[in-house]
Amino acid sequence: MDQGLRKCKANYAPLSPVTFLERAAAVYASRTSVVYGGASFTWAETHERARRLASSLLSLGVARGDVVSVLAPNIPALYEMHFAVPMSGAVLNAINTRLDHKTVAAILRHSGAKLLFVDREYAPLARNALQHLTDKPAVVLIDETGGEYEELVRRGDPRRELPELDDEWDSIALNYTSGTTSAPKGVVYSHRGAYLSTLSLLLQWEVGSEPVYLWSLPMFHCNGWTFAWGMAARGGTNVCIRAPTAGAMYRAIADHRVTHMCGVPYLFGVLLDAPAADRRPLPHPVRMLTGGSPPPPRLLEKMEALGFAVTHAYGMTEATGPALVCEWRSEWDRLSPERKSALRARQGVSVLSLGEADVRDPRTRGSVARDGRTKGEIVLRGSSLMKGYFKDAAATEAAFAGGWLWTGDVGVVHPDGYVEVKDRSKDVIISGGENISSVEVESVLYGHPAVAEAAVVAMPSEKWGESPCAFLVLHDNTTAITEEEIVAHCKNNMPHYMAPKKVLFVESLPKSANSKVLKYQLRAHARAICNSSSSTTQMNKNTKPPPSRPPRSQFPRSYDNTHETEILARSRL
Amino acid sequence: MDQGLRKCKANYAPLSPVTFLERAAAVYASRTSVVYGGASFTWAETHERARRLASSLLSLGVARGDVVSVLAPNIPALYEMHFAVPMSGAVLNAINTRLDHKTVAAILRHSGAKLLFVDREYAPLARNALQHLTDKPAVVLIDETGGEYEELVRRGDPRRELPELDDEWDSIALNYTSGTTSAPKGVVYSHRGAYLSTLSLLLQWEVGSEPVYLWSLPMFHCNGWTFAWGMAARGGTNVCIRAPTAGAMYRAIADHRVTHMCGVPYLFGVLLDAPAADRRPLPHPVRMLTGGSPPPPRLLEKMEALGFAVTHAYGMTEATGPALVCEWRSEWDRLSPERKSALRARQGVSVLSLGEADVRDPRTRGSVARDGRTKGEIVLRGSSLMKGYFKDAAATEAAFAGGWLWTGDVGVVHPDGYVEVKDRSKDVIISGGENISSVEVESVLYGHPAVAEAAVVAMPSEKWGESPCAFLVLHDNTTAITEEEIVAHCKNNMPHYMAPKKVLFVESLPKSANSKVLKYQLRAHARAICNSSSSTTQMNKNTKPPPSRPPRSQFPRSYDNTHETEILARSRL
Repeated sequence: MDQGLRKCKANYAPLSPVTFLERAAAVYASRTSVVYGGASFTWAETHERARRLASSLLSLGVARGDVVSVLAPNIPALYEMHFAVPMSGAVLNAINTRLDHKTVAAILRHSGAKLLFVDREYAPLARNALQHLTDKPAVVLIDETGGEYEELVRRGDPRRELPELDDEWDSIALNYTSGTTSAPKGVVYSHRGAYLSTLSLLLQWEVGSEPVYLWSLPMFHCNGWTFAWGMAARGGTNVCIRAPTAGAMYRAIADHRVTHMCGVPYLFGVLLDAPAADRRPLPHPVRMLTGGSPPPPRLLEKMEALGFAVTHAYGMTEATGPALVCEWRSEWDRLSPERKSALRARQGVSVLSLGEADVRDPRTRGSVARDGRTKGEIVLRGSSLMKGYFKDAAATEAAFAGGWLWTGDVGVVHPDGYVEVKDRSKDVIISGGENISSVEVESVLYGHPAVAEAAVVAMPSEKWGESPCAFLVLHDNTTAITEEEIVAHCKNNMPHYMAPKKVLFVESLPKSANSKVLKYQLRAHARAICNSSSSTTQMNKNTKPPPSRPPRSQFPRSYDNTHETEILARSRL
Repeated sequence: MDQGLRKCKANYAPLSPVTFLERAAAVYASRTSVVYGGASFTWAETHERARRLASSLLSLGVARGDVVSVLAPNIPALYEMHFAVPMSGAVLNAINTRLDHKTVAAILRHSGAKLLFVDREYAPLARNALQHLTDKPAVVLIDETGGEYEELVRRGDPRRELPELDDEWDSIALNYTSGTTSAPKGVVYSHRGAYLSTLSLLLQWEVGSEPVYLWSLPMFHCNGWTFAWGMAARGGTNVCIRAPTAGAMYRAIADHRVTHMCGVPYLFGVLLDAPAADRRPLPHPVRMLTGGSPPPPRLLEKMEALGFAVTHAYGMTEATGPALVCEWRSEWDRLSPERKSALRARQGVSVLSLGEADVRDPRTRGSVARDGRTKGEIVLRGSSLMKGYFKDAAATEAAFAGGWLWTGDVGVVHPDGYVEVKDRSKDVIISGGENISSVEVESVLYGHPAVAEAAVVAMPSEKWGESPCAFLVLHDNTTAITEEEIVAHCKNNMPHYMAPKKVLFVESLPKSANSKVLKYQLRAHARAICNSSSSTTQMNKNTKPPPSRPPRSQFPRSYDNTHETEILARSRL
């Protein structure tokens, strides 16, 4: 069949997001690519600047497969590097700026970064990190008033011939998981995977022509959930801000007529609780893609009321960002707001490039029933997953056991095919043999008007094995409220055995650099309380015991520290 | 860099549109996939039926790379075969049902089809075609009342293990060009190319979730410009009709609330001229993608007024359908209707998967200036192009000369990056050294209220080398109109030297099976008239001669019959 039907320059091009910028320079040349404060660029300019920078990287000796690291907020330089670095054949390593200097040092050491670009704000962090290293990368300072970065752009030759991409499996980005207790793992993306993920996310989120995208999500999170490349594909406008404060976000939305933005549910609070002085009316509904943790339905309702059309996604660094998206169905339009929010809080269906997403029994490895009740572990496969962990063949092999990426997240499949995360494996509370989803308990807690933030973890219980323990941050203006009132609220809204046996009011929740609640810290805290008091046992007297079953039967995972550490290191969005 | 970062089942899946159906069965299981008359299927059913049919194909001895041909209108069976045939490892060859039996025979012979599926309506055509063949394929009859096709579906095993796709470069479809005078050429698509083309067309046309797609464009045209696969990717509803008559289209739009449809500009006339009895009000604006020939701006305006939101695309069989799409820009919203239609009639910008589209000087092979005036030949390259011509390595090599597909179409690039087709190379009329675009003259002719159809070709002229000759079909209700009135209308709307020197009123224009005007027939006709009369020379006396230049300087292509035949064989959409 295939005689004479060979791949050639005319009919085969390695898939790469870099081609999106080349096309944007051709077909969206004079459109605004990036705005930042008073600065503004066109796609022709962004393309030329990226070519110049790539040329300078080559002059500095950067070669194919070298790692180029960067510590910067969402500024034009970081955006340009998403293209310039792969254009030079190198691999972009955008480091989480919220990490401490030791972790940054560990990343620089592990990645073997040849160059480190640093925004002036993060110069102290970089300096401290570099002190830990014997083999230091060359440092390039990014400064808004000029600086070494601008000098590299200026002296680069935009007409210099750049190395051609021969193999779409070549690496384009190296993103470290947030690993809070163990050494972070380096997740490697291929040009092919990044290209396909970008296309399928644009499709799934229905990003039409001329989007105006607000950079409220850090670019160092899975390359901005691929939208760093996606905006070039769409010829959109990137609105850069240094930090997603309420004032900066509302101002950018109003001034630039933002149409799209991403962010973890933490940003809901920032937007909802903004003081009046920071607020601006939205010029039109703003589409917001969220993920990282299941958004509480009540917060979704409030966001919708404020004018944000929220789409919920689920993903992880290993899946190049969102892997499941809660695609809206028109038949839901006629449902009540509460029901809509509950449906919208589900994780949804696989993005097109994923190949397959499923929920499987970790023991039998078979698919669970699509009944919305039978739990299993969410598994993924397809071309939008990572190549693997950098310099860690063993971890890569373990992650891909049996031809699937095992996410460590527990979920169900509803009859309509939508996946819903019930918990992280280790976040399931097994009380008297019954599984209690901490996410479900948190959802009910968020329904109480006084609750600003809620986190529920397992607390040891002599009688039941484990019991739910709630940590709550209350709204500033809240009047006195008691543990009993909270427990009563829960019992009114869920089976009694699921209600927290202990409620602790705290000033704030411990969080990772990615704004994820560090539940292992809360669990340790709950354990300590349990050992020093007997209140838990007393409270249990008043609750109706659930039907007795052997504990931990459904998810026979080891809950020792090693496992916890490993799971934590595989970060979600 | 790549140590331990290998492709495996978890992180690499060969790109194939078949995966769209598998995903649809998982995530859009109970949604309507196909409706046809009183019949209706869900995505779970379409998936199961495709698997059953694939299983039966294997039982019939179909093997990897075998060709399975089909002669059918837009019915569910043809839709299902778009998945079932590649699922069995075979290659789908959907034959243009408007071809004559000799051409069908030539296609069956050249493709070496192992099986031929035939809709009952085309049984006589198939019978006549098969008489020309010594080595006949097995025939399967498709009949709405059951028939052999349904029997194959029924007795297939939906759980049978189907051959895995190992290489995304494997062939998925074989589509013959319409070649009206020479033997048709077989254009081969890979799974990869079809997958990427589908994704990028969904993106470019902004096909959101839950589309309802009317099959007004034949599926045998580049697999319905990839939307046969695209609807599965989107979980849309395919509304099948046997023929795009005005009544069938308006009824389907109203009954099924159609959101999207495709078609050549010929369909504009069918919709615009429909008798009142066939019309139904549109339930909402219907998005229509058109291509095949540049749509006259006046017709675009009328379609918009009727409620169709028309997007104009340009493509060819070799490019898996649309390669350029006229992406709308919001800055055009405030322009006059005339200006909007003129902008919308341009061919536009490259689809994302294309890699590159350019307009190049056929002599120097360099890009032309982006000034909207300098003409060159449109060239394409990228992963959405064909693998090549089946069993014709020489033609494949010629088509891809220098790493580009040379389209044979003359165009310009506007300063905004939009390509506009000025003519087929051979359709340029070179008069006194000046290039006259027949498309431009036709556009002006369509502006005359009496003109229903217009085609302009070159007529030999002793004085100027060539002169424009117009063939016109008038609206039914038109009162008497003279050649002089038409010429006067042209001179009022364009440079005098571009006005037709001869106007001929005809009942209808000769057309190919793809509804393309057969200009070579008109040229022969114009030559004959010219030889038998001297009216042309007389008329020229009244026109102002253009500045004298050597004739045919800009496009030194040979205009002999061999070339004409070759170009015609490389059909557009």
